[in-house]
Amino acid sequence: MSRFFSEKYASLIPYTPGEQPQKTGYVKLNTNESPFPPSPRAVKAAYAEAKRLELYPDPECTLLRKTLADTYGLGMENVIATNGSDEALYFAFLAFCDEKHPAVFADVTYGFYSVYAELVGIDYREIPLKDDLTIDVNDYKNAGGTIFLANPNAPTGIQLTKDEIEQVLSTNPDNVVVVDEAYVDFGGESCLSLLGRYDNLLIVRTFSKSRSMAGARLGYAMGSAEMIGDLNTLRYSTNPYNINRMTLAAGTGALEDMEYFVNCTKTVCENREWAKTELQKLGFTVTPSSANFLFAKHAQIGGKELYEKLKQRNVLIRHFEKPRIRDYNRITVGTMEQMNILIRTINAILEEKR
Amino acid sequence: MSRFFSEKYASLIPYTPGEQPQKTGYVKLNTNESPFPPSPRAVKAAYAEAKRLELYPDPECTLLRKTLADTYGLGMENVIATNGSDEALYFAFLAFCDEKHPAVFADVTYGFYSVYAELVGIDYREIPLKDDLTIDVNDYKNAGGTIFLANPNAPTGIQLTKDEIEQVLSTNPDNVVVVDEAYVDFGGESCLSLLGRYDNLLIVRTFSKSRSMAGARLGYAMGSAEMIGDLNTLRYSTNPYNINRMTLAAGTGALEDMEYFVNCTKTVCENREWAKTELQKLGFTVTPSSANFLFAKHAQIGGKELYEKLKQRNVLIRHFEKPRIRDYNRITVGTMEQMNILIRTINAILEEKR
Repeated sequence: MSRFFSEKYASLIPYTPGEQPQKTGYVKLNTNESPFPPSPRAVKAAYAEAKRLELYPDPECTLLRKTLADTYGLGMENVIATNGSDEALYFAFLAFCDEKHPAVFADVTYGFYSVYAELVGIDYREIPLKDDLTIDVNDYKNAGGTIFLANPNAPTGIQLTKDEIEQVLSTNPDNVVVVDEAYVDFGGESCLSLLGRYDNLLIVRTFSKSRSMAGARLGYAMGSAEMIGDLNTLRYSTNPYNINRMTLAAGTGALEDMEYFVNCTKTVCENREWAKTELQKLGFTVTPSSANFLFAKHAQIGGKELYEKLKQRNVLIRHFEKPRIRDYNRITVGTMEQMNILIRTINAILEEKR
Repeated sequence: MSRFFSEKYASLIPYTPGEQPQKTGYVKLNTNESPFPPSPRAVKAAYAEAKRLELYPDPECTLLRKTLADTYGLGMENVIATNGSDEALYFAFLAFCDEKHPAVFADVTYGFYSVYAELVGIDYREIPLKDDLTIDVNDYKNAGGTIFLANPNAPTGIQLTKDEIEQVLSTNPDNVVVVDEAYVDFGGESCLSLLGRYDNLLIVRTFSKSRSMAGARLGYAMGSAEMIGDLNTLRYSTNPYNINRMTLAAGTGALEDMEYFVNCTKTVCENREWAKTELQKLGFTVTPSSANFLFAKHAQIGGKELYEKLKQRNVLIRHFEKPRIRDYNRITVGTMEQMNILIRTINAILEEKR
């Protein structure tokens, strides 16, 4: 820390992203990336823009927002594009949390929520998951703060139904409810259809997972024109050109290739169910995931030990050193080839222990 | 504004970017873009990464930072890469300004500084330029706050020498001095060589102008390892993957193509001097610019009128509706073809008035 750093941030502990090893050769199942490349339409569109980088991008993100709005049956004024969904979440913390509006979220959820709360300098309340790692929506009724719900939740993969989300919305008419649907395209139930009925609902999504574009940095939020306007006020006060030309074009290209999207997400769901069954056969307890990852623990091997032994064998998964979930690991669903390697390698590790 | 928007931001007035018309056909001289495409090496590198967008970018930006460090004779720990230089400036406002450390900058300078101060909620003091639109460094001695100096300044294009910057640094040992060198590659004198001697110096730069990459969103800051560490703490608390794979690769490619960079910036400087002389022949007063734009006024036509008449004729320049500079326009230096159109069109407009 320099002697100039504002004391406001002296104790700030940043988010720890999953390892992004520069060494290649890993079966990389640790950061919930898609095992498939982006749509060829996305690649082609990005390349065309790479030749025109001398010009600023469109700060209004007009074409991308129009395509998103058309895809999801909304008006353009209901959509904002962001530099990854992380930026949308950050803007939501800035816009809708303050001394009078603390943040409320689960004790086991996306690790960035507490970092944003610390950064923005607001109080937050963590609501414990139930013992089975599910969320009890009753805990979120009249929550007295701005609610952040990852649905499906991470790292558990467990989802709430739309009806459950609606219970949270209707019992919190004066609190914003941010539903983080980063993983919704893998079998989750979206609350998109509730947007017209609840002006306190903000949905946040990403192109990182289901659109194979983690490397492009593109997210978006959907909500009332007024809430989207608030986020735009912050966006135009921090970085109006937050999304580059190539990513804007790739995003539009990816949205236009519906068939590719459907095939990729369908394959991931199939591979997930296969891998889940195989893990269960090996003795794992696996949460019911509606996401592109599995969350699993085993009575005979600790979470950290399994993570480390897999890493030694060039398979990367994600372990969280957090009391309630340290027995678990989060395993991204990859190709069938990757899933086969995973299961074979885990089997060998377990054999050694017997 | 929604009924949920934090009252902290109720009166926030966002930055107004220059027009980015989606209609084509303009001679676009309004946002200081390069008239040349990015280096072919940058384009090729970006395309290679477009095919691998399913993977997150390297949050450490290792290769780009190494190339920047090598290019400028620094250690990697002295460099942070950001989503445009705007993000570096935003982080600097967060990190180095607070109740005890107000911001200090010129009354006529990059318009985003005051927006950042408002957003971060800190006091700021604007120091008037002299009547000739130059900065008097004496005004910045013992400034009692965190200093932001655009050098060359925008929109005047007028630069301070390295010696003058050093006077500011040495008389403000306990204040951070942020030198915004967005335009330094067009003939400005960088204070890079002062980095080792002053731990209160932070230099901010961009790939938008001299590297023809405004559309890629890439900036960087250089300073002591400790200050760069502070900025990284904020970066990892907001958006660790702030720069996408394509832009990281394009940036490295652009840095490797030194010849292209030298040719582009040299041509822009030559075109600037030609256009400046022609404008003076037409009766304009033109500031001595060391940037890729000219700042000019004319006794017979107001700044806004000239802007509007040029726009009607498909030539876009930038007018600022600000008392001290409303007689002026900022004109980006383009190709010789564009400069010829500009001069011919202005000549026709002036003829009409006679």
